[in-house]
Amino acid sequence: MTAAPPFRASVLTLYPEMFPGPLGHALAGRALGAGLWALEAAQIRDFARDRHRSVDDTPAGGGPGMVMRADVLARAIDAVSPAGDPRPRLLMTPRGRPLTQARVRDLAAGPGAVIVCGRFEGVDERIVAARGLEEVCVGDVVLSGGEAAALLLLDACVRLIPGVMGKAESGEDESFSAGLLEYPQYTRPQDFEGLTIPQVLTSGDHARIARWRRAEAEAATRARRPDLLEPSPPCDKQATERE
Amino acid sequence: MTAAPPFRASVLTLYPEMFPGPLGHALAGRALGAGLWALEAAQIRDFARDRHRSVDDTPAGGGPGMVMRADVLARAIDAVSPAGDPRPRLLMTPRGRPLTQARVRDLAAGPGAVIVCGRFEGVDERIVAARGLEEVCVGDVVLSGGEAAALLLLDACVRLIPGVMGKAESGEDESFSAGLLEYPQYTRPQDFEGLTIPQVLTSGDHARIARWRRAEAEAATRARRPDLLEPSPPCDKQATERE
Repeated sequence: MTAAPPFRASVLTLYPEMFPGPLGHALAGRALGAGLWALEAAQIRDFARDRHRSVDDTPAGGGPGMVMRADVLARAIDAVSPAGDPRPRLLMTPRGRPLTQARVRDLAAGPGAVIVCGRFEGVDERIVAARGLEEVCVGDVVLSGGEAAALLLLDACVRLIPGVMGKAESGEDESFSAGLLEYPQYTRPQDFEGLTIPQVLTSGDHARIARWRRAEAEAATRARRPDLLEPSPPCDKQATERE
Repeated sequence: MTAAPPFRASVLTLYPEMFPGPLGHALAGRALGAGLWALEAAQIRDFARDRHRSVDDTPAGGGPGMVMRADVLARAIDAVSPAGDPRPRLLMTPRGRPLTQARVRDLAAGPGAVIVCGRFEGVDERIVAARGLEEVCVGDVVLSGGEAAALLLLDACVRLIPGVMGKAESGEDESFSAGLLEYPQYTRPQDFEGLTIPQVLTSGDHARIARWRRAEAEAATRARRPDLLEPSPPCDKQATERE
């Protein structure tokens, strides 16, 4: 018997054909082929019980769109993630807490994730508490469904699974890892359409290069993402509950 | 001659096989098939000129990883987006400005987008100014490449292209659209594992339902995303340059 991959992802979706999709190529695809992680995509509709296999219904109280039923989702979750499954269960939703690189690192170091891709118009709220779902938001945009967000989250996680990146790829100088955006990068050719590489970078003076990069990273962060430099926001209900 | 689709996306990537990927299914896939938008994925490597077809080189000044060459990228961009192309050119990068639903709405109302998916370790900084790239960040996470971010951005845009969503789907009550998270949703069954739908939603009192939903949306936003309630951050260099 071969060892199970250290990181197992189970995605619950109405569109299992979207998976592995982009994750079947490049770095994540090679790691999938090498057994460094595993991915299953389960069709939520398989857990509907009426003859129309319906997974959603009109919103209580009225309003546009359809809402995914809690009972159907519960059966789907229980099938792929029975009680005792150590994996966190995530719900991709614009109502969620913004995904951070810190959370990605935690996930990548763990046993995997169960990821529920709801209809983006809404999922019956009762499923969140009933199955302990962590609501996660990726970017302040509205998607057609949670699938694109799930693919992005898994891409971010998989590259950090031990063994997936080579040493040369796994630099520590990454945006967000140190709370700053990364410094600007340059490479050959020395002259590109009359624009040259900043002289300091070709000086060979490593201490000066490190200082310049630090200053550039700070300046970019101040100009583009002052929010990253601010102290933590006031007490976050989710953070209090979960951490 | 048939009319060109109103929204044309050109993606520059080292992995064109990742496209359309998830965008070939569900809402976006049906719209693609119906000619409501068009997608081309160009292989950046086709624009390398040396015999190894190399697209990147070591960072000037040292450091881990590889940096994508400005000259190769420039040739690729010029091929798919010659001078006069009215489409904005985006670079998916963790150094970018966070994507917002407002920017997504603007993009969806325009002629499309040229999207450069760089190596996430870095792209030669000179290409940004030389080809007028708008640096866009989707979520504060580090990806293996810009592809997953490009797929997410296009999913968000395509659903807003006129004709893609039916009237029933295109509610205005969406998270972020009004600067608030959406209120919680409920649907049948009335009793789910002993949890019932909040009584107000089945009261039939539309004014009371509207007040309850507004209060719930505000409470969720305060608890989870106080940043959405704050006044705009101090002068953003990018915003000043671009707006």
